[in-house]
Amino acid sequence: MLSFENDYSEGAHPRILARIAAANMDQYPGYGSDEVCESAKARIRGACGDEDAEIFFLVGGTQTNQIVIDAMTAEYEGVVAVETGHVNVHEAGAIEATGRKVLALPAHDGKMDADELDAYCAAFLADANRDHMVWPGIVYVSHPTEYGTLYTKAELEAISDVCRRRGIPLFVDGARLGYGLTARGTDVTLEDLARLADVFYIGGTKVGALMGEAVVFTHRNMPKHFLTIVKRHGALLAKGFLLGLQFDELFTDDLYTRIARNANVQADRIRAALAAGGYEMPLVNATNQIFVTLPNARYAQLSRRVRLSFWERADASHTTVRIATSWATTDEHVDRLVALLRDTLTADDLL
Amino acid sequence: MLSFENDYSEGAHPRILARIAAANMDQYPGYGSDEVCESAKARIRGACGDEDAEIFFLVGGTQTNQIVIDAMTAEYEGVVAVETGHVNVHEAGAIEATGRKVLALPAHDGKMDADELDAYCAAFLADANRDHMVWPGIVYVSHPTEYGTLYTKAELEAISDVCRRRGIPLFVDGARLGYGLTARGTDVTLEDLARLADVFYIGGTKVGALMGEAVVFTHRNMPKHFLTIVKRHGALLAKGFLLGLQFDELFTDDLYTRIARNANVQADRIRAALAAGGYEMPLVNATNQIFVTLPNARYAQLSRRVRLSFWERADASHTTVRIATSWATTDEHVDRLVALLRDTLTADDLL
Amino acid sequence: MLSFENDYSEGAHPRILARIAAANMDQYPGYGSDEVCESAKARIRGACGDEDAEIFFLVGGTQTNQIVIDAMTAEYEGVVAVETGHVNVHEAGAIEATGRKVLALPAHDGKMDADELDAYCAAFLADANRDHMVWPGIVYVSHPTEYGTLYTKAELEAISDVCRRRGIPLFVDGARLGYGLTARGTDVTLEDLARLADVFYIGGTKVGALMGEAVVFTHRNMPKHFLTIVKRHGALLAKGFLLGLQFDELFTDDLYTRIARNANVQADRIRAALAAGGYEMPLVNATNQIFVTLPNARYAQLSRRVRLSFWERADASHTTVRIATSWATTDEHVDRLVALLRDTLTADDLL
Amino acid sequence: MLSFENDYSEGAHPRILARIAAANMDQYPGYGSDEVCESAKARIRGACGDEDAEIFFLVGGTQTNQIVIDAMTAEYEGVVAVETGHVNVHEAGAIEATGRKVLALPAHDGKMDADELDAYCAAFLADANRDHMVWPGIVYVSHPTEYGTLYTKAELEAISDVCRRRGIPLFVDGARLGYGLTARGTDVTLEDLARLADVFYIGGTKVGALMGEAVVFTHRNMPKHFLTIVKRHGALLAKGFLLGLQFDELFTDDLYTRIARNANVQADRIRAALAAGGYEMPLVNATNQIFVTLPNARYAQLSRRVRLSFWERADASHTTVRIATSWATTDEHVDRLVALLRDTLTADDLL
Repeated sequence: MLSFENDYSEGAHPRILARIAAANMDQYPGYGSDEVCESAKARIRGACGDEDAEIFFLVGGTQTNQIVIDAMTAEYEGVVAVETGHVNVHEAGAIEATGRKVLALPAHDGKMDADELDAYCAAFLADANRDHMVWPGIVYVSHPTEYGTLYTKAELEAISDVCRRRGIPLFVDGARLGYGLTARGTDVTLEDLARLADVFYIGGTKVGALMGEAVVFTHRNMPKHFLTIVKRHGALLAKGFLLGLQFDELFTDDLYTRIARNANVQADRIRAALAAGGYEMPLVNATNQIFVTLPNARYAQLSRRVRLSFWERADASHTTVRIATSWATTDEHVDRLVALLRDTLTADDLL
Repeated sequence: MLSFENDYSEGAHPRILARIAAANMDQYPGYGSDEVCESAKARIRGACGDEDAEIFFLVGGTQTNQIVIDAMTAEYEGVVAVETGHVNVHEAGAIEATGRKVLALPAHDGKMDADELDAYCAAFLADANRDHMVWPGIVYVSHPTEYGTLYTKAELEAISDVCRRRGIPLFVDGARLGYGLTARGTDVTLEDLARLADVFYIGGTKVGALMGEAVVFTHRNMPKHFLTIVKRHGALLAKGFLLGLQFDELFTDDLYTRIARNANVQADRIRAALAAGGYEMPLVNATNQIFVTLPNARYAQLSRRVRLSFWERADASHTTVRIATSWATTDEHVDRLVALLRDTLTADDLL
Repeated sequence: MLSFENDYSEGAHPRILARIAAANMDQYPGYGSDEVCESAKARIRGACGDEDAEIFFLVGGTQTNQIVIDAMTAEYEGVVAVETGHVNVHEAGAIEATGRKVLALPAHDGKMDADELDAYCAAFLADANRDHMVWPGIVYVSHPTEYGTLYTKAELEAISDVCRRRGIPLFVDGARLGYGLTARGTDVTLEDLARLADVFYIGGTKVGALMGEAVVFTHRNMPKHFLTIVKRHGALLAKGFLLGLQFDELFTDDLYTRIARNANVQADRIRAALAAGGYEMPLVNATNQIFVTLPNARYAQLSRRVRLSFWERADASHTTVRIATSWATTDEHVDRLVALLRDTLTADDLL
Repeated sequence: MLSFENDYSEGAHPRILARIAAANMDQYPGYGSDEVCESAKARIRGACGDEDAEIFFLVGGTQTNQIVIDAMTAEYEGVVAVETGHVNVHEAGAIEATGRKVLALPAHDGKMDADELDAYCAAFLADANRDHMVWPGIVYVSHPTEYGTLYTKAELEAISDVCRRRGIPLFVDGARLGYGLTARGTDVTLEDLARLADVFYIGGTKVGALMGEAVVFTHRNMPKHFLTIVKRHGALLAKGFLLGLQFDELFTDDLYTRIARNANVQADRIRAALAAGGYEMPLVNATNQIFVTLPNARYAQLSRRVRLSFWERADASHTTVRIATSWATTDEHVDRLVALLRDTLTADDLL
């Protein structure tokens, strides 16, 4: 069945598979201590314009959020995130599992407001009971956010500025970073992230790799003994070279951004079809996640022909769903979806 | 200096001290496995009207909240509490330290609404992503709340009813329970709590004991090997008999409720003085915590003569403070406070 | 450089890569909820002769150990393992990271003795202080062990019998299970494991897969909400179908055991060469790990031509190293190693 | 019934009780931020001869061990202790509950050997797999040990020297410190501990206080935000002044050492009686814990008249028990015990 359920439905970009296959019987030392990982790191440092960046490859996003937040905070500290942030809602308590509280700020279309962050920190420090509270120890934002929205460079600079004034590291979840960097109208580059964040990651799982996230610690601030910390979390991949091979390939000839752009282009085609069809879109962004609110019967009808993601109940008779494109989305798939969206409800659908 | 800073400023009711002194050179086995603890438990079971209740004595409130919530939930579960709940704000992450997330609901004068709780659970179960989220595993309410407010019996029954329909245990934080049970107009009794909650505690630290909280597991639901769990948390008191002696005394001749009532009576006197003086009280309750919003200069003036608790900044020029009475508050202390509250600001105060 | 450093130096068996490539643009639902995972699980159930077995695919071994031990024990329990067990020594504290203590028994060539296990449990229960101690909550053994040794069926039955009499689940780490099942002289089958263990895993990472471990819960004892528990550990692979594809292929036409056998055959060739060369082997087994004690100069010489694994310092002038073969080891590689082992030290080597 | 079961069977030294009673209706600020705590700290700094020492009062020993070890180690580190150490055996996994592994060294009458510690650290650093292992992050010794034995000054200096050369803090558990400092023949003083340890505690619970341990961080190395860390562990006593009052009194006029000495003197009387009676003492020390191996029938007989502590089964027909004296042990109690020890078994006892 046709699927726009998420951006991790397919395997990997063919160049990634070819690269793995070509190296298949080469022998690599374990745990990422190999030359291809070094090569991939060098390419990423180059792309970030940060020769001091320290890079570590992990397998998945929740894993990365858990480990980075744990390793970069003291036990009396927590992570400040917006209430809709992945770490606050959709990680099954992975952050709390390592003893860290999520300190939730209001979300604005999925984004954090720098002034609200600053006010939160100021109020915390002014609170006479602060020693009985969880200290803000790291700031977490997603780019793109869980709603596909993007920070402008000015917005990120404002957040980064608050963090630096207050001595709190800024962590950017880039699970879908490729789609953010290549969106229409964005002014945020990889170099900007490397300049403004203290740690961020470049998502591979959702952008062309089989799996893998490249964590970039800027300004030489990788926690001491980070490999041991990763092992302690059960997250150290024995065949680390598999991650190295993939990121080495993704950062050769701009593969990462080129394949990411496709998702946004295809999403724009779907957005156009939705707009033309008079569909209700509660929030519009320029990346690969499209949110549309459907009458329940319409949702049921579509679900028989295409897999979409349940997002939330809008009201008793409407459901908001997510349509996700990816590096792998083809013109033909979009054509089929657009055709389905044009179909009207039939009596049969209402059964 | 005169203090209305909190309800744990003094030692213990004289009868408690006398009881400890009388037993001082008796020899007790360790860790609460003594006869006086058994006697205290029997008295509490009687007062609760629940002959099956299992009781464990702990030292402090945050400790109790941490251990009960940890022990009564699975690792994939969290605790539902209002956003102003002690476990969510003022325990320095003690709940998260044992790997549990606080799932925050709106607070209404510090209280949880049963319908909102039910709606939260319903929405959770209806969410297609629920397996990636923290399951509601226990419900936490405080009685009195952190704002000194009280649930009515009907409100507690409604919450208990939601919990039982949904198979989620109800935990009542009774750190100030004595003040709640003896408040003007309350219709909630200890028997009601034992009937409606799955676990609750009777606060001693703030109600006449040197320290100690009596955790009551109703319906035979004390977690297996609870003593070992307490030890693992570093919370098992070697001289458990000290807790037994205190609760045995508190539950002899109604000492617990008799001394608790004093706090509410004295608080009413202060509330009357505040009302007469035209002070702004953002929230009025019938227990031992009084909240009053003062111009900052007035707050500074009073702070030179009496210790009050900072609660929160009301606005740039006003501060909300808490005045707390207790079992130990004397007429004379209240007279002095009332006199201070009548004083007008002098030029000297504004320096 | 030639490597016998470990059994995870290469990618995957070509059939595995081909299977992934063939399915690359198919669209799968996330997190292992796909048909290919179901197919793989059915094949594994068949191979185990246990139609009730519940199976979950994870990425790596330490991750699996951490999650299984955490999920199958209460917080007052720990894991009983031999002192040389992977969970006790080489997981960087991953077990303790989730709050579980490793209760170490003596190791006999890496193996646990059933009588010692029984005596440990008996002594624990007879200890008047047991409520202040960590309860034995799960028993962990590796098959093959960290020393490549194997339990006989009678030995496993004896351990399983102790576990069942005492109500403690038995967990078998099968990270190298393929090499154990196909070793000369073993009488332990997959069906035996499914019968004797309460949970075990079939290692893919070291036996032909890119990565992946198939956790088999026998007797319907997968912990409730296990997927959420895995997510909470940051260990839920978005593209779960990648694990399904690999295990579906490994359990088609006995691929798993056929490729595993190669490692043992090649190891036997190396063992023969070592014996012929008069090398000191502190421990001999029938699986893919060979331990040999070398004069330090000889170790240094060999290390310039082949990658071996440091195991431990034998004494001031000798080092014990590990030679590991795998599904990927070729005749040619073994020929080269055997030739190197025949070389004598030259003056140059002693520089 | 007469009890020599432990050193926490009675309440507190009368001067402690009197001090608490005298201050009972004074009003103190919460959480140890009061003047009497400051006074107690000043007295302890004086007694330690370390004007820079930072002191924090906690309630119990396991709690203290858990918090200090957690707060003074990174997550990739563990605690090195002898296998018989309290943290390794009798804390129900409290250390692991906060994610730290106990790295066990051999015990020599309960003591750690400096050379073995050094060799352990050296072997760890020389191990090529060390990044996959738990790093030694703090060294824990008890003085007196769990067997009542004492380090000599030279032994402590040797351990401290290893720790400083290797950059690992030394933590001394002084739950029974008073009995160690006042033992016959010891050359270790409080000043020595303050000089040699990085953190240690002065036990109050077992030496005259109702409860309480004074944690002394020497060399200004109290972890940042330690109060918040304590709160996060659920261990911050609301009425911190109760601990301050007790330690202020214990460190007035040498009360602490004077009352401690009594325990050792009384223990010597019992040891003399045991020796005279031909009892088997598997280990002899100069402090307040006496270990004696009894025929089981004799143990059963004595248990009907005096409470002793089960220690371990010596063999099928013998049990090793512990006799503990304390600050509270009276001449009369010892006389009664000595008389009991002189009694011979009667036929009745063998029933």
